[in-house]
Amino acid sequence: MSPTETSSRKRALSGIKPTGSPHLGNYLGMMRPAINLQEEYEAYYFVADYHALTSERDPKAMRQSVYDVTSSFLAMGLDPAKAVFFRQSDVHEVTELTWILSCVTAMGLLDRAHAYKAAKDQGNEGKINHGVFAYPVLMAADILLYDSHIVPVGKDQVQHLEMTRDIAQRFNHLFGETFVIPEALVQEEVMTIPGLDGRKMSKSYGNGVDPLSPEKKLRKRLMQVVTDSTPMEDPKDPDTCNVFALYRLFSSAEQQAELADKYRAGGFGYGHAKQALFEVINEHVKPYRDRYEEIHQDVDFLEDVLRDGARRARERAAPVLERVRSRCGYGSGRNK
Amino acid sequence: MSPTETSSRKRALSGIKPTGSPHLGNYLGMMRPAINLQEEYEAYYFVADYHALTSERDPKAMRQSVYDVTSSFLAMGLDPAKAVFFRQSDVHEVTELTWILSCVTAMGLLDRAHAYKAAKDQGNEGKINHGVFAYPVLMAADILLYDSHIVPVGKDQVQHLEMTRDIAQRFNHLFGETFVIPEALVQEEVMTIPGLDGRKMSKSYGNGVDPLSPEKKLRKRLMQVVTDSTPMEDPKDPDTCNVFALYRLFSSAEQQAELADKYRAGGFGYGHAKQALFEVINEHVKPYRDRYEEIHQDVDFLEDVLRDGARRARERAAPVLERVRSRCGYGSGRNK
Repeated sequence: MSPTETSSRKRALSGIKPTGSPHLGNYLGMMRPAINLQEEYEAYYFVADYHALTSERDPKAMRQSVYDVTSSFLAMGLDPAKAVFFRQSDVHEVTELTWILSCVTAMGLLDRAHAYKAAKDQGNEGKINHGVFAYPVLMAADILLYDSHIVPVGKDQVQHLEMTRDIAQRFNHLFGETFVIPEALVQEEVMTIPGLDGRKMSKSYGNGVDPLSPEKKLRKRLMQVVTDSTPMEDPKDPDTCNVFALYRLFSSAEQQAELADKYRAGGFGYGHAKQALFEVINEHVKPYRDRYEEIHQDVDFLEDVLRDGARRARERAAPVLERVRSRCGYGSGRNK
Repeated sequence: MSPTETSSRKRALSGIKPTGSPHLGNYLGMMRPAINLQEEYEAYYFVADYHALTSERDPKAMRQSVYDVTSSFLAMGLDPAKAVFFRQSDVHEVTELTWILSCVTAMGLLDRAHAYKAAKDQGNEGKINHGVFAYPVLMAADILLYDSHIVPVGKDQVQHLEMTRDIAQRFNHLFGETFVIPEALVQEEVMTIPGLDGRKMSKSYGNGVDPLSPEKKLRKRLMQVVTDSTPMEDPKDPDTCNVFALYRLFSSAEQQAELADKYRAGGFGYGHAKQALFEVINEHVKPYRDRYEEIHQDVDFLEDVLRDGARRARERAAPVLERVRSRCGYGSGRNK
């Protein structure tokens, strides 16, 4: 019995850790490409709240952050009629698969995981919780439970997908062909999104721009982009300017040429440039923001989306888990 | 919200690892006392086949060993109308609780577990599977999932129960009162059961007697009890004789006095003593053996017992798991 295909399209899986509002960098670098997968693949997205329990101890914050992430994805174009979007903890099957995979995962493999090593480097090794150490097994279960073919990952996550492949191959070796071996779809960092201070936009630098924040707040935030002190009347160089770099990401070639001319002509201050930047970004994100504001407080709607996603995810998971359980000798063995 | 009581009786929980047929030592030292709990407690027994996956890779052997253990317990008097007897892997809820508890379990706690240390001492640390390391978390989930009050343990397992208490207290501390803190019911080793060679009866010594083996096989096995070489006609000392030591466990004071007289009188050989031993044991185990042979091949019956046990176990587990999930911020939070 080899893994069977019930759909002609390949499946893609993405996990999203629920941590606050996304910034423009997340949006362009991760969310947009992830959402685009829904066109080509049978796409599964889950909000990783089992994973989040390794650090989040506040139930209200946990629940709210799931709603925040769900609202952002829906607002930015994830279509729940096309893709399956669900909350990890609504599909308990993944924890059963996690235990089963634990029994074929070598301790040495987990010891080498980057995230655990980083946690160890920060201090008291014995106090790290076991969820941090065991997380790569949960991640393997997340991926393998849906016979996922591809997993989009940043370059820093390639190791975790390699571990998933190792675990799946080990199980297949011990118990016979069971799992689809997933492939990494490595996201090339085609562009680095500059933050307000010109460094890469990053939550840890605090230099991000939340594209879904209210219009006034967005404008205020963009006025904080760091520039040099060239006086207003002097010509300016668009190619070394953070404002222009951000402008590029949301404008046409024609718009860019027009703004560059104004820079070079002089008599055009950074305040004017920031206003132009605000206008193109605002134009771009307005429909998303409107949608976000519409759904973010509508918990019934969000729960409906999540519940429907979980139902469809569990439908996909059930035969895979049954295949695995039967390999282990669980159940009566008479439903095959 | 504190853990609620829905039954006036306290709950006891015992896990049984599915590993081959029990010997007389298991029967008198573990099974009999465990089965007796069904009178005083609301007793839960499970066959630990999730745990067994850390070493068993053959699905047929896995399934069969569950049936073997179940048949033994039922034959020896476990009453499924009183007690809840189930297969661990039929209650997937325990794996979800395992993940949740992992996130509050310090790595240092697991590093100190005897069983993991013993595995490390045997050689290649990196090759030990993660199930062996994570097992105390699964055990904690096994116990806490049923609001168990007491857990009968041998002296060598006291540490594992301490770990369960630590994990439960840690969760209660972080998330508010959630778990019943279980107590150990330490089984005093009232007697050491001698094996065929006079050493303690143990699977690892290969000196055990399977009380449920067919009559002829049982007799043949008991004829192998090691004795000294006193000639038949000479008087013998019952107090230094392995045969007599075993006889004691299955006979009345009157029977013992009678046999002791024969030993001391002489003209009574070890062969006669072994025959007497066979007769008392056979008399004692015959009803169990008959019952065992009746049910052991009746997979439908065994599955019915296990399925009914799982149903009742899941009924007990459901509100506990819901209590835990709500503490973590899982689900919609609107069914409270």
